[in-house]
Amino acid sequence: MILSTQERTDAVRRMIHPRSIAIIGASADFAKVNGRPLKHLLEKGYTGRIFPVNPKYPEIAGLPCFPSIEELPEPPDLAIVAVQARDVLANIEALGRRGVRAAVIFSSGFGEMGAEGKSRERELGERANAAGVVLCGPNCLGFVNAFDNVYATFSQYADGETGPGPIAFVTQSGAFGTAIAALARQRELGLGYFINTGNQVDLGFSELMLSVVEDPRIRVAAGYLEGLDDGAALVRLAQRCQELGKPLVLTKVGRKASGARAAASHTGALAVEDVVFDAVIRQYGVLRARNEEQMLDMLEALSQTRVARGSGLGIVTQSGGAGVMMADRAEEMGLTVPELTVVTQNRLSDVMPAFGASGNPVDVTGEFVARPELLSESVVAMMDDPNIHVGIVWLQLMTAHVEKLVRIFSEIQSRTNKPVLVCWIAAPQEAVKQLHELGMVVFTAGERAVEAASALARFHISQQRAINRSATESGVASCVPNNLTDGVQDTVQASEWLSAAGIPMAPVALAGSEDEAVTLWRAAKGPVALKIESPDIIHKTEIGGVLLKLDDETAVRDGYQTLMQRASRELPQARIRGVLVQTMSQGHLELVVGVQRDPVFGMIVMVGLGGILVEVLKDVAFRRAPFDMEEGLQMLSELRMGALLDGVRGQPAVDRKAIAHLLSDLSGWAASMQPVLAELDLNPVLVGGAGPIAVDCVMVLKDERP
Amino acid sequence: MILSTQERTDAVRRMIHPRSIAIIGASADFAKVNGRPLKHLLEKGYTGRIFPVNPKYPEIAGLPCFPSIEELPEPPDLAIVAVQARDVLANIEALGRRGVRAAVIFSSGFGEMGAEGKSRERELGERANAAGVVLCGPNCLGFVNAFDNVYATFSQYADGETGPGPIAFVTQSGAFGTAIAALARQRELGLGYFINTGNQVDLGFSELMLSVVEDPRIRVAAGYLEGLDDGAALVRLAQRCQELGKPLVLTKVGRKASGARAAASHTGALAVEDVVFDAVIRQYGVLRARNEEQMLDMLEALSQTRVARGSGLGIVTQSGGAGVMMADRAEEMGLTVPELTVVTQNRLSDVMPAFGASGNPVDVTGEFVARPELLSESVVAMMDDPNIHVGIVWLQLMTAHVEKLVRIFSEIQSRTNKPVLVCWIAAPQEAVKQLHELGMVVFTAGERAVEAASALARFHISQQRAINRSATESGVASCVPNNLTDGVQDTVQASEWLSAAGIPMAPVALAGSEDEAVTLWRAAKGPVALKIESPDIIHKTEIGGVLLKLDDETAVRDGYQTLMQRASRELPQARIRGVLVQTMSQGHLELVVGVQRDPVFGMIVMVGLGGILVEVLKDVAFRRAPFDMEEGLQMLSELRMGALLDGVRGQPAVDRKAIAHLLSDLSGWAASMQPVLAELDLNPVLVGGAGPIAVDCVMVLKDERP
Repeated sequence: MILSTQERTDAVRRMIHPRSIAIIGASADFAKVNGRPLKHLLEKGYTGRIFPVNPKYPEIAGLPCFPSIEELPEPPDLAIVAVQARDVLANIEALGRRGVRAAVIFSSGFGEMGAEGKSRERELGERANAAGVVLCGPNCLGFVNAFDNVYATFSQYADGETGPGPIAFVTQSGAFGTAIAALARQRELGLGYFINTGNQVDLGFSELMLSVVEDPRIRVAAGYLEGLDDGAALVRLAQRCQELGKPLVLTKVGRKASGARAAASHTGALAVEDVVFDAVIRQYGVLRARNEEQMLDMLEALSQTRVARGSGLGIVTQSGGAGVMMADRAEEMGLTVPELTVVTQNRLSDVMPAFGASGNPVDVTGEFVARPELLSESVVAMMDDPNIHVGIVWLQLMTAHVEKLVRIFSEIQSRTNKPVLVCWIAAPQEAVKQLHELGMVVFTAGERAVEAASALARFHISQQRAINRSATESGVASCVPNNLTDGVQDTVQASEWLSAAGIPMAPVALAGSEDEAVTLWRAAKGPVALKIESPDIIHKTEIGGVLLKLDDETAVRDGYQTLMQRASRELPQARIRGVLVQTMSQGHLELVVGVQRDPVFGMIVMVGLGGILVEVLKDVAFRRAPFDMEEGLQMLSELRMGALLDGVRGQPAVDRKAIAHLLSDLSGWAASMQPVLAELDLNPVLVGGAGPIAVDCVMVLKDERP
Repeated sequence: MILSTQERTDAVRRMIHPRSIAIIGASADFAKVNGRPLKHLLEKGYTGRIFPVNPKYPEIAGLPCFPSIEELPEPPDLAIVAVQARDVLANIEALGRRGVRAAVIFSSGFGEMGAEGKSRERELGERANAAGVVLCGPNCLGFVNAFDNVYATFSQYADGETGPGPIAFVTQSGAFGTAIAALARQRELGLGYFINTGNQVDLGFSELMLSVVEDPRIRVAAGYLEGLDDGAALVRLAQRCQELGKPLVLTKVGRKASGARAAASHTGALAVEDVVFDAVIRQYGVLRARNEEQMLDMLEALSQTRVARGSGLGIVTQSGGAGVMMADRAEEMGLTVPELTVVTQNRLSDVMPAFGASGNPVDVTGEFVARPELLSESVVAMMDDPNIHVGIVWLQLMTAHVEKLVRIFSEIQSRTNKPVLVCWIAAPQEAVKQLHELGMVVFTAGERAVEAASALARFHISQQRAINRSATESGVASCVPNNLTDGVQDTVQASEWLSAAGIPMAPVALAGSEDEAVTLWRAAKGPVALKIESPDIIHKTEIGGVLLKLDDETAVRDGYQTLMQRASRELPQARIRGVLVQTMSQGHLELVVGVQRDPVFGMIVMVGLGGILVEVLKDVAFRRAPFDMEEGLQMLSELRMGALLDGVRGQPAVDRKAIAHLLSDLSGWAASMQPVLAELDLNPVLVGGAGPIAVDCVMVLKDERP
C-alpha cells in the first residue's frame, strides 16, 4: 500500500508521538546500540507500550520479548530497527504487513558505503514506500521526543539530562548533531526534539522539522545541514515557520569548493551552490549561523521570549573598550548603535559619575558596586529610549557581588519589556543560573552577544517583511509558449518574449543581408550596433562579433561584411543566422542580470555590477523567483559596489526602483517559464538616466516537462 | 634629575622585579584598593621588603608602617601610590627626592576626567620626569609579576590563582584586561606578567612589554590596545619579538573608528587609522586577534612548544561535517588542506573502515572506540605526510572513553613532533587536564582550532620573512632637497624627484604658451596629453582639465586654449602655471599608488586597483616605508582584484615584480623624505606589457623638521 499524503503526515506524527514502540533486534545488553533505546525508555519513564523483538530472549528487563514482527500483539506506532544492514529490508516489509507505518533505522551499511550500499538504499526506499512504511534513516542515531520521553535513539546525548524545552533540533549529522545537543545542554537550553535524519532515504530534513515545528511548545527551530536536495521543501518549511512566528536557525557546512569536495564523499545528498543556498534561505527569513557556537548563541537569544522590534542596540559596559568592540561588531552585523535622545542623555547624566561616558555605549565603570542604582538606572534609561530595541549589559568577574547584580538585573527585567542580553565574562556559575531564572540569557563574550542581538533584530525584520510581502510572490501560473526547441534561442525571439514580460530590451532586428542591415539602420534613425547572430556563438565579443556606434551606410555595409567574415574565419562550423541591428542605448553603468534553473531551488535570478569585474569580485546577489520589487531593492543593497548606483565622482545616481522593477518582472516571467528555461543572461544591462535597458541576451531552453 | 636611557631602562626593570616595595597610602582594610596589594604580597609570599606608608598606622599586619616617604629606611625599587588624585603629585616628588625611581599610580582623576584632569595629568608627567621617577599609570590596576610574587595591583584577577606561565600580558584597559586574565586562568594558560598601563602618562604599552618580553621564561607576548600614539615604539617591540622568536598577539578595539582625515589625496582618504594599524602590525609579524576569545585561542596554540613549519593542515574527525566546516575555515584563514601523498593514502586505507573518507579531512567515524589504532594510526600517518605541518583532531563527548583517548593522544604526541591541536566538543574536564599534561591544547570548537592553527602557521611564515628581509628595510638616510616650500608641488619638479628615485614617470614638461605646447608635442613624436597645471587644481579631471591623445598642431593649439579657458572659468582665483604636455603611455590596468605621512606610524605606502572603484571598494594595501620588493609582492597579493594583474577575459598578465619594484623604490624615497613629505598620489599608474608608468602625480610637502 502506498500512503496518501494525509496518511503519511499521520504516520510521521505518530512516529514522533508513539503510543507504542517496537524495538526490532532489541538487546539485553544496554551498552549496545540495540540495547540503549530500551534502557532510556525504561529509565526515563516512557509511558507507552514497549515491545522488544528478538528470538534470542523470552524477556528483557521484565518486558516480554517477541520472537518476530508477525507475533507482535498490536501494530506499534513506531518501530526501531537495529539489525544488520542485510536484514533491514525484510524487516521493513514485515513491519508493513503487520500494519506498522513508521520505522527508525539505526543500521549503517547503505548510501554511505559506496555503490553497493547506494543500490541497497535505493531498493530499501522503493520497497518501504510500496509497503506503506515511512522511514527515518538509515544510518541515523534516531530521535528524542523529550516531552513524551520517547528515546528512539542510541546517541550519547541521551545519556545525560534531556529535559524538554522550546527548541526543536534536527540534524543531518549524527556525530556533530550530538555534539551540538550536548553543548545546548551545557547552556541549559532545552531541546524539545532531537532528530537525526541520517541518510534520508525517505523522510528528509524539512519534512521532519515540519512535523515538530507545529508543536505549540516549540518556539525555535534549529537545523544542522550537510546537503540539500529538496529546496522547495525547505522553502515551504521556512514559510511555515514565518507563519507560525517561529525563527528557523540553520547551520550548513560546505561554504567553499574544497568543503564541497569532502561533502560529496560523505553524504548522499546533492551538492548545492552555497551562495544560492545562502541567498534563498535569507529571502525566506531563515537565520543562518556560521557554525555551532553561533547557532547556540542565536538559540539562547531566541529562546527568551522578548522581541527586538528594530535594529537599535543599546550598550552598557564597565569597560570603554568592550563597548567600542561591541559597537564595531554591531555595525558589521547590520545593527545600529543609535545616538540617545536628549531625554535619555539627561537621565544618564543624572546618575552617571563624571568619568563615565554618557553616549551609547555607556561606560558605567566599576562604580556600581558601591552605587547599584548607577547600573540599574543607566540600563533602564537606555531601554526606555525609543531608538533602542535591544540592550546588552557587559560585565566581568564580580564574583563577590553576585547577589547584588542579580537584584539589579531583576529590577531591570521588571522595568523594561525589551530584550536585555547579559554578557558576563568569567561569570560565576551561580549568577548564570539565577539570571536564567529571571528569563535572561548570559553570553560569555561581547561580540557573541552582539551577533545574538542581531539575530533577534533580523528575525523581527524578516517577519515584518513576510507580512508585507507582495502577492506577486504567492505563485505564478506557468505560461510557456508553444513549439519550443531546446538550446540557445534566437535573440530576436528571446527579446520579444522578454519585452512582452515587461523587461526593457534595446530594439533589435535581424538582417540577412547588407541591404537589410542598411534598411534597419535607417529605420533606427541613429547609431546602431551590429552583432553576429548564431546559436553557436554565445559570447559574441570573443570573436570580435560586435561593432558599435555605426551611423552611416558605408560603415553599416562594411560592418556587415566584417562580421560575416570574422564568424566564418573563427568558427567555420557555426550556423550563422545573420547580423543583428540594434539601436545604441545610453547608460554609464553596466549590470549583469541573469536567470538560472538551480537543481535544488528552481528558478534563481541574479544581479551583479561591474562588467568585467563581476567575475573577479563575484559582487552579485541571488533570489529565488518569483519575488517583488522590495526584494529587488534588497538585492541591490547587497552589492558591495552598490554605491556606484548612487553616483560616484560626479556621475548621476540611477533609479534603483526601476532596476528592482526589472528584477521583479524578470523573476515572475522566469517562474512561469520554469519547466523550459535553463538559463538566461542579460549582459550587459545598461543603466543611465532613462533607467535600465538590456542590450544583449542569451537564452537557453531545456524542456523538463514530464 | 632627568634619567638617562639606561637609567630609565634599569628603573623599569627594578620596578617589575623589585627587591623592595613601598605602598604610599597603605590601608589596614584589605578589601580596599589601597589595602589589597599588601594583602596579596603577604598572602602569596613576596620575599622582598615591604614598607607601608601612612601616618594613620604605626603598623599594618605586623609590618612597621612609616609616617612619610621621607622616613622610609631605604629607597625602594617600586612605590605603589594609592592616594587621592590631588595628593599624587606631591608624593611623586617626595619619592624622587627620596631616590625612588619608579612608581605605579592607582589613583584615578586624571586624563579620564575632562580638561582639568588632563591638565593635572600633563603636569604630573612633566614633574615626575623632572623628579627622575618613571610612572606606570595613573588610573591603572597596576601589575603582577607572578614569577616573583609581586602584586602591585588591586585587580580582581589577583584574588584567584595567578600561577606563573609563559605569557606576558599587557593591557591598556583595566576592566577588559582583568576579564581576559580571568579567562586565561580558566583555560589554565599561565600569565607570567599581567600589566595594566592605565593612562600611560609615562610608560606606554610598548615600553612596558619590551621590559618583560626579554625574560627567557616568557614565550608569548599578548597585548590589548585601545589606542596608540607611538607607532615607532610598537614597531621596535614587534621587531624585537621577531628577533627573540616570540610571537606578539594583539587585540585592538576601534576597527571602525572614523579615522578619515581631510586629505588632498586618495591615499590620505583611504589611510584610515585602523586599516593602517592592521597593515603595519602584520608587516612586522604581529598576530592580530579580532577579540578576546580569538586572542586566548591563539595563546593556547602558541603556548605549546611545537612549531608549524608551513601552512598545510591535516584534519582528522569523527564527523564528516565537522571536517568540511574546518576545511572551509582553513581556506578562509589562508591555510591549505592538502591532498595527501600516495604513501599516506595507502597507510590510511590500511587502517580505515570502508565507510570513512580517506582524503583530507579524514573521517574515522566512531569506530575507534572499538579499535583505538584507527585513530592513532590515522593521525600519525597524516602527520607523517610531508605536506602536513599542523594537525587537528576533532572529537565530541566520549565521556566513557577518556582514558582510552588520553592513551591514544599520548601515543600520537610521542610519534610526531608536529603540533597536533585537539578540538573536543563538550570534553570531560578530566580529559582536558590530562591532555594539557601531555603538552597538548584543547579547543572547544572546530573553527576556533583552525584559527589557532593558522596563527601557528602565520607566526612561522612571518619569522621566515623576518630572517629573509632585505637590508633595504633596515633604514634610509634622510636626503631632503634644499629650498623647499610647503604645499602642492609643481608636477614637473615632483616628477623629476621621483624619476631620480627610480620611479617610472611618463615624460612631462610645462608649456607656458601655445607655441611651447606645440614644440613639446613635436618633440614627443607621438600623441600627447595636455593637463592644466596649478597648485590650486589637484583633481584636474573634475574641471575638465585633461585632454588626451592629441596628435596634430591644431588639436594641441585648440587644446591649450580650451584648458586655459576652462580653468579661468571654473576657478578664476587659481594660480595657473601653464599646461603640461605629456607623452601618452600604454597600459590596460590602472593602479593608484600613494604615500601618506601617518601621525602614528610615519610614512605609509599604498597601492590599489580599479580606477574609479578604488574608493568604492577600498581595495588597497598599505605598508610602512621602507620595505623590500618581497613586501611589495605581498601587497599585490592582498588586493581582492589582484586577479586582474594575471589577465582576465583575454587580457595579458602584467609583471607583478615590476610593480613591486616600483612600490619598494617609492617606499625608500618616501622614508628619506619623511621630514617634509605629507602626501603623494600617483593616480593612475598605468600597467601594460612595458611595466608600470605613473601618468599623474600630486605631491604635497609639509616641512616638520624641528
